[in-house]
Amino acid sequence: MSSTFGTVFKVTTFGESHGKSVGAVVDGCPPGMALGEADIQPQLDRRRPGQSRLTTDRDETDRVTILSGVENGRCLGTPVAMNVPNRDQKPGDYKSMQSIPRPSHADYTYQMKYGIRASSGGGRSSARETIGRVAAGAIAEKFLRDEYGVEIVAWVNAVGRISATEIDEKMITREIVDETPVRCPSATEAEQMVDAIRAAKEAKDSLGGIVTCVCRNVPAGLGEPVFEKMEARLAQAMLSIPATKGFEIGSGFAGTRLNGSKHNDPFVRKGDRLGTLTNNSGGIQGGITNGEPIIFRVAFKPPATIGLAQHTADFNGTDTTLEAKGRHDPCVVPRAVPIVESMAALVIADMALIQKSRNK
Amino acid sequence: MSSTFGTVFKVTTFGESHGKSVGAVVDGCPPGMALGEADIQPQLDRRRPGQSRLTTDRDETDRVTILSGVENGRCLGTPVAMNVPNRDQKPGDYKSMQSIPRPSHADYTYQMKYGIRASSGGGRSSARETIGRVAAGAIAEKFLRDEYGVEIVAWVNAVGRISATEIDEKMITREIVDETPVRCPSATEAEQMVDAIRAAKEAKDSLGGIVTCVCRNVPAGLGEPVFEKMEARLAQAMLSIPATKGFEIGSGFAGTRLNGSKHNDPFVRKGDRLGTLTNNSGGIQGGITNGEPIIFRVAFKPPATIGLAQHTADFNGTDTTLEAKGRHDPCVVPRAVPIVESMAALVIADMALIQKSRNK
Amino acid sequence: MSSTFGTVFKVTTFGESHGKSVGAVVDGCPPGMALGEADIQPQLDRRRPGQSRLTTDRDETDRVTILSGVENGRCLGTPVAMNVPNRDQKPGDYKSMQSIPRPSHADYTYQMKYGIRASSGGGRSSARETIGRVAAGAIAEKFLRDEYGVEIVAWVNAVGRISATEIDEKMITREIVDETPVRCPSATEAEQMVDAIRAAKEAKDSLGGIVTCVCRNVPAGLGEPVFEKMEARLAQAMLSIPATKGFEIGSGFAGTRLNGSKHNDPFVRKGDRLGTLTNNSGGIQGGITNGEPIIFRVAFKPPATIGLAQHTADFNGTDTTLEAKGRHDPCVVPRAVPIVESMAALVIADMALIQKSRNK
Amino acid sequence: MSSTFGTVFKVTTFGESHGKSVGAVVDGCPPGMALGEADIQPQLDRRRPGQSRLTTDRDETDRVTILSGVENGRCLGTPVAMNVPNRDQKPGDYKSMQSIPRPSHADYTYQMKYGIRASSGGGRSSARETIGRVAAGAIAEKFLRDEYGVEIVAWVNAVGRISATEIDEKMITREIVDETPVRCPSATEAEQMVDAIRAAKEAKDSLGGIVTCVCRNVPAGLGEPVFEKMEARLAQAMLSIPATKGFEIGSGFAGTRLNGSKHNDPFVRKGDRLGTLTNNSGGIQGGITNGEPIIFRVAFKPPATIGLAQHTADFNGTDTTLEAKGRHDPCVVPRAVPIVESMAALVIADMALIQKSRNK
Repeated sequence: MSSTFGTVFKVTTFGESHGKSVGAVVDGCPPGMALGEADIQPQLDRRRPGQSRLTTDRDETDRVTILSGVENGRCLGTPVAMNVPNRDQKPGDYKSMQSIPRPSHADYTYQMKYGIRASSGGGRSSARETIGRVAAGAIAEKFLRDEYGVEIVAWVNAVGRISATEIDEKMITREIVDETPVRCPSATEAEQMVDAIRAAKEAKDSLGGIVTCVCRNVPAGLGEPVFEKMEARLAQAMLSIPATKGFEIGSGFAGTRLNGSKHNDPFVRKGDRLGTLTNNSGGIQGGITNGEPIIFRVAFKPPATIGLAQHTADFNGTDTTLEAKGRHDPCVVPRAVPIVESMAALVIADMALIQKSRNK
Repeated sequence: MSSTFGTVFKVTTFGESHGKSVGAVVDGCPPGMALGEADIQPQLDRRRPGQSRLTTDRDETDRVTILSGVENGRCLGTPVAMNVPNRDQKPGDYKSMQSIPRPSHADYTYQMKYGIRASSGGGRSSARETIGRVAAGAIAEKFLRDEYGVEIVAWVNAVGRISATEIDEKMITREIVDETPVRCPSATEAEQMVDAIRAAKEAKDSLGGIVTCVCRNVPAGLGEPVFEKMEARLAQAMLSIPATKGFEIGSGFAGTRLNGSKHNDPFVRKGDRLGTLTNNSGGIQGGITNGEPIIFRVAFKPPATIGLAQHTADFNGTDTTLEAKGRHDPCVVPRAVPIVESMAALVIADMALIQKSRNK
Repeated sequence: MSSTFGTVFKVTTFGESHGKSVGAVVDGCPPGMALGEADIQPQLDRRRPGQSRLTTDRDETDRVTILSGVENGRCLGTPVAMNVPNRDQKPGDYKSMQSIPRPSHADYTYQMKYGIRASSGGGRSSARETIGRVAAGAIAEKFLRDEYGVEIVAWVNAVGRISATEIDEKMITREIVDETPVRCPSATEAEQMVDAIRAAKEAKDSLGGIVTCVCRNVPAGLGEPVFEKMEARLAQAMLSIPATKGFEIGSGFAGTRLNGSKHNDPFVRKGDRLGTLTNNSGGIQGGITNGEPIIFRVAFKPPATIGLAQHTADFNGTDTTLEAKGRHDPCVVPRAVPIVESMAALVIADMALIQKSRNK
Repeated sequence: MSSTFGTVFKVTTFGESHGKSVGAVVDGCPPGMALGEADIQPQLDRRRPGQSRLTTDRDETDRVTILSGVENGRCLGTPVAMNVPNRDQKPGDYKSMQSIPRPSHADYTYQMKYGIRASSGGGRSSARETIGRVAAGAIAEKFLRDEYGVEIVAWVNAVGRISATEIDEKMITREIVDETPVRCPSATEAEQMVDAIRAAKEAKDSLGGIVTCVCRNVPAGLGEPVFEKMEARLAQAMLSIPATKGFEIGSGFAGTRLNGSKHNDPFVRKGDRLGTLTNNSGGIQGGITNGEPIIFRVAFKPPATIGLAQHTADFNGTDTTLEAKGRHDPCVVPRAVPIVESMAALVIADMALIQKSRNK
């Protein structure tokens, strides 16, 4: 269960890392909206590994085909099914790991949950599962852009111990983000991050990091109290991405150290609307957007699959040593950027459509 | 919408801060389970303000009555409706604020969303809304305790800039937590926290903080990939609590700074099951529990309502100064402890019941 | 589970027949809509037994109290909780039936499902459960009336073997329906029905019947293909009412006997919209309303609880004879009229709000 | 929206009649269950047109491919995506109908709902949409058969004015049903039905009919009061099938004419369980299965698309005459048999998995 996400803009994803294909079905897509594969492919390309030496060498072309829901370049309002064939199936690479659950990977828990698991790769816990999300997110994003001018931009804010220092959240664009292979728009640290990732790769180790995301021009009034507050749905969306360990909105954990008098965002007139002088709220108050940019950060752990030998136990509890042989990302954070953007788009699009039910 | 949470163990809450009553309906409660008001009241009492000088002086007795679903002390398997009357309705206290949206409160966003809002207090964004959650959570917790021996214990880990230093997550109990008024089981810092809260109160200011929660004896195999991973649902649950700004599972944001070789949790035999030597995963791998304790942290911002005068704008955008006159918590974190526990229980109970659908 | 109904206009009901109270929580109620208990009570009164000699003698006043979601006579857009105390609890009447499952009642199946059941009355399968639906339906109906001028009118079309002959679906109103105690607006048959019900009562037997319902002024475009077609949701709603055995939309079962050339509804201009000359479709084509009146019929079986002695078996399978001693309706169909109307309103309101998500 | 059905056993279908493909994603499929395309294809073949002169001549091979969720012939517990390419796309056949909404078809209502519609065929209202249901239903059915020995058999009980007279619901099998091209296991009437359908075809007209379905060996205790009673979900499922106009469970509309003393099903010991002597309840009491066979009937209208000229109006309201030129079924009822079975399986499988959440 639970491969479905959303209430009105509803996404169902499918596919294992080494099965025939992965994909998604988007139900609730606004009828009449212009849509084609060309609207979806760019984000899939940004998600794809093999774009630089920083990521895994697998060449996954990841071509999306729209199977339904679109005719003559327009959405019919019916489910848009999208399919992306898996081209690079090498289950052999994983054979040696079948009796040993990879530490901090999902082998053990899938086995405990289902009593069976994909014989190779991570099955549904693999990074390939996110292809369906990104394809669906591209549609959500197109709707938000066309209808409200929403701009969603994520970037790498930290890799391991290196944090970006100079980023202007108001001006940042995807073009700027993509200027460095590590997708960090702070030049000095970007270079350091690249070096750190290379070093980790050579050391057969891996690195975590932090992705920050800003969503501009989101209209005020979106988000559903009580349990589907905008930040609650964003938190769910982000923590549903593989390898994530944390979520912060606005001031986040650092904000807990401020006094209320410093933390509060005073209101101020901004053109014909009310805005706030500061944005510790991260664009959300009481679970509802206030028209200011939504800003949040997502923590990604270092990838669990590393080349270094690891002392661990096999499924029987016997001590053993595991050496992974597949091709693995030393740092998923740069590739996570479009995934974070996609999940944000899915949440906001759903909330936007739900809010319409209150319009006269 | 969205006052309903859960798929099989399903909770619907209702009630404004100054209406007739608040409460919840729990559907999916296991039939035959022993249940009475005495199982629910203790957590409501822990949530209640007025228990110490640290919290607001309002005396809200918050007596719960079970309206349905229980007969002769046993759950019928039908909806358990619970009602808690509001006794202390003083809408007059809030009159002056009607034309001025309180900074970082939900007045403005509720108005933008609904075009109307409760004339006093926070309506559904008030802390009183959490009564329904706590009542429902007590039922979820009883099920988890009876069926699996699950223990859920939360505590205050930080208030403002003061962080607890000596806490044993394996041994901590609610009794230990409740020994200090600030619910921080680290004696030195507890005292400092108490002082800090008193100082903030005198300064008409407020303080944020961090709550940590551990869930022990949760069976392996719970959590639904893809979008309802255990940590994703926990994140949603926690970020749905008023005033929260962040969520971390296991190693969290700090874990992003570790290498994979350090971060991975090696497997090791633990009695008749497989366990892990470390627990950076926070008890969850690939969205599914692994049998180790679930550990997570929740960031709470300093309460928005403070006595200090604030420069802000009214609904028309005109500059003004706001001085709140009601009685307000200078720091909600100690009272948030049972709320965090309750939301955790709601998530885990739902995941446990869903997983049963896979049993033979 | 499953005491919740609807996606955007969402209702959760609670309460056993002989517990403390019954009621409902309505989430998704349009903010700003005028609402008070006076909008809800009339339909509850129409549902109430004891209004005439035709129904059970129990005097259940069924006073509704709104607990939340409404302030100063306006909906806040937050959950509207409604409570109706049970005043007439006489579980003693049912004691003798505990070891013998009543034939065609839910005693046996509840026991099989839950392993426990309410010690008296029908628990959640009792007619009192419908109070929550009627209260919620009154709100849905008010929204539909205020926003679109929707008129929902149901009536008794058959009691046992007696069928109404002269009813004008275009002109019928609730006032006309309520002119006879049996709620059949066809004078000759109404009298025969009254006689038949009296005779059944004297014979300690019971009678079934058919309720027809028309919904006028429902806008075109409502209903969600594929699985939530308007007629599919209406069918679910109606078959969820206790004692129902069938549902027909438009031409229904009789329509299966017509040729397509006779059955098709030709289009014709009606003012500024397209209408149909005939209405075999019952106002719905392809699951979506076409602007013509929605017309459907619901079959109600004769009540299972009768005074006549019945040969049956007890829970152990031993042959026995059962004589019910409580007070029972010989024919529930007249009281079912507002329940059918309420469920129709719940479905249409939900579909109307969902459709708004497609508006520009 | 609403192309998703079910709570734990969840199906999402996609595809227009003349797009690239149709299909379904099944989430919640029991892990470890043996499954392959060979388990799914037979019901798709039974659904396929072109099998006899009675149905449309279109040759749609309808080969299903499993894209995910199955490895080495076993379900992984992850989403099973299934794809069926559309091979016979002749949108040209429908060109002439674009300005004229076909009477009693969904052209007009889709246009009103979405402001756009598939330029040819019925889009999502086409019979091809049911392919996804049948593929998903075959999986549900396999689970029910493997786990409980459930047998689901539907047949044609009436075509136009001809009704079957001699059918033994206890013994009937799919093999018996398939012995006649009209799928009516009552020899005399089967022949008459065949003649009637041929006559209708020659007359360029169409015929409706009734499908009856029996589900044997369904365990007691399935079905969720209040709104998801077994019969309520079955009613929704059946009325969601294109061209359906009615649903009856057990005694149905005819049962409304009986007295309670005749209608009630007395209990009787049946081996080690309690059964009923009669089965007017249709295997369900209070929304919960009682272990007796579930029996229900579904009314299908005569297909809307006929070759006969029809007086109607175009989208502008101008009087016109429509003559359909495509290839059309004169009677869909025989092909509806596997669709009815599939929808029944989807409902029962979902209810069975939900009920497991109550097991110890």
